[in-house]
Amino acid sequence: MVDVPQLVEQARQGRPRAVARLISLVEGASPELREVMAALAPLTGNAYVVGLTGSPGVGKSTTTSALVTAYRKTGKRVGVLAVDPSSPFSGGALLGDRVRMSEHASDPGVYIRSMATRGHLGGLAWAAPQAIRVLDAAGCDVVLVETVGVGQSEVEIASQADTSVVLLAPGMGDGIQAAKAGILEIGDVYVVNKADRDGADATARELNHMLGLGESRTPGDWRPPIVKTVAARAEGIDEVVEALEKHRAWMEERGVLAQRRRSRAAHEVETIAVTALRERIGDLRGDQRLDALAERIVAGETDPYRAADELVDGLTNGG
Amino acid sequence: MVDVPQLVEQARQGRPRAVARLISLVEGASPELREVMAALAPLTGNAYVVGLTGSPGVGKSTTTSALVTAYRKTGKRVGVLAVDPSSPFSGGALLGDRVRMSEHASDPGVYIRSMATRGHLGGLAWAAPQAIRVLDAAGCDVVLVETVGVGQSEVEIASQADTSVVLLAPGMGDGIQAAKAGILEIGDVYVVNKADRDGADATARELNHMLGLGESRTPGDWRPPIVKTVAARAEGIDEVVEALEKHRAWMEERGVLAQRRRSRAAHEVETIAVTALRERIGDLRGDQRLDALAERIVAGETDPYRAADELVDGLTNGG
Repeated sequence: MVDVPQLVEQARQGRPRAVARLISLVEGASPELREVMAALAPLTGNAYVVGLTGSPGVGKSTTTSALVTAYRKTGKRVGVLAVDPSSPFSGGALLGDRVRMSEHASDPGVYIRSMATRGHLGGLAWAAPQAIRVLDAAGCDVVLVETVGVGQSEVEIASQADTSVVLLAPGMGDGIQAAKAGILEIGDVYVVNKADRDGADATARELNHMLGLGESRTPGDWRPPIVKTVAARAEGIDEVVEALEKHRAWMEERGVLAQRRRSRAAHEVETIAVTALRERIGDLRGDQRLDALAERIVAGETDPYRAADELVDGLTNGG
Repeated sequence: MVDVPQLVEQARQGRPRAVARLISLVEGASPELREVMAALAPLTGNAYVVGLTGSPGVGKSTTTSALVTAYRKTGKRVGVLAVDPSSPFSGGALLGDRVRMSEHASDPGVYIRSMATRGHLGGLAWAAPQAIRVLDAAGCDVVLVETVGVGQSEVEIASQADTSVVLLAPGMGDGIQAAKAGILEIGDVYVVNKADRDGADATARELNHMLGLGESRTPGDWRPPIVKTVAARAEGIDEVVEALEKHRAWMEERGVLAQRRRSRAAHEVETIAVTALRERIGDLRGDQRLDALAERIVAGETDPYRAADELVDGLTNGG
């Protein structure tokens, strides 16, 4: 028996075990999921959610870790959600994240959570926003969501952040990779990490060109900055924070932040509703109606489309 | 304006262009899709659907082609549906299939169709059964569905056949690959192709072991045969046909065929119904209800789950 109100109260007070427990509850689609989400609702909406994405090897975890340090210096409470779909079964990447983040392990103002995919993409897209809500309700001022920018689902998660950071590194052919994955379109801030390596300027120039940053824009439009960093030495990290805060201020000024959050919430509701409807249909497996329809299709008396119409009508009329 | 009844009549008479046009209509989710499916329904249920799956390089297309030749010798009309998801954009594999199948190109008793994925797996799982229906209605006695056995969706398609053939080749580590993809569980007939190569016996033995074919079974259970072939020289192909016919007879005797077809039809209805429900929700984008719910979530007045409940209730009460 889980005492949800008590857990939520403890999470609000900043107890890491309560936060971890709540994330496990929402992540695992436990029976208490709905109760947890209802209890969290009035506590959410304060966290600034930053998505970080990029190909493997660009230094996402190092950059994330450096950003945590920078935000902690200003007294902010920081949540980190590391979503790594490259390792659906092993959990190896999870350990890696933890090691890289270990300098923050004893800091009570930092929550770190790794999420692996559950083998299907929908699960990931669905669970991450819930985990963000927990971190938000737990009093995080900033939530950093780190994803590998390779799949559609990861792009989706990143695009659900308030601000999306796209990371690249010199000499990795990232430009092309990023363009393929569609992540170039989602960046609000671009980071060329490992900028002490050869080719950093070329990568920045290529990026500048691909983004059409040299072209004229409608005045007042956001112009994504390109920041060069060496995250391992914390170089350029303050500039990234500055860029993030500028983007946030720009969004707030223009109502874009509220708009993005509404759109994110709408998307979330949609995902949950589709899952619920799918489950309703799933419940009909072995149900006489579906069996009877299948029988009639096999007999050539009806076709799958008319049958689906009947099924949907049955469901949508309280059947 | 498409004259569906005329197209269907022409397809029934065996005109290849009409068959091709109908498949394009159902594949492309055209406005006429429902009309086509309704017109086809009473004409379907005659074709014996054989799924062929296996890793790239095991000789699926060669085997398929040899099976076409074998079935044609007995006067059967044959449809081939080659589903190749490895090439979502290029269409290169499509051309390859055509070349391999070219010996049948001028045979009026053979229909060959390649389908590429449309970039999302759902599309493939959804379109293949419709195309099978067209070939069925066009009078094909046998429909061979060739898929690459690597993804969940392909396994799904193969499992929707009346009989599933799993192909392997020696020295490709196919045993392990097949096990990973879960295709070992779906075979009704196993083919070790390229059996003139070293290691063919070892592959057959390994397969025999993995399938537990040496173990005792409930009398009357189907015991998947392992057939060795050299498809390029048509060696062993008659044995494959024999195995297929045996499996078909076994299924008919025990009512398994009808049961599989009902289950396939039920699955199809489900897929279509979920898509339809998803579209209904999609229609709500920009709808006041979803916007209002999103607004309330952002304000912390409700949570995504309660909002989804409201949305689903609205839909399922004719809203």
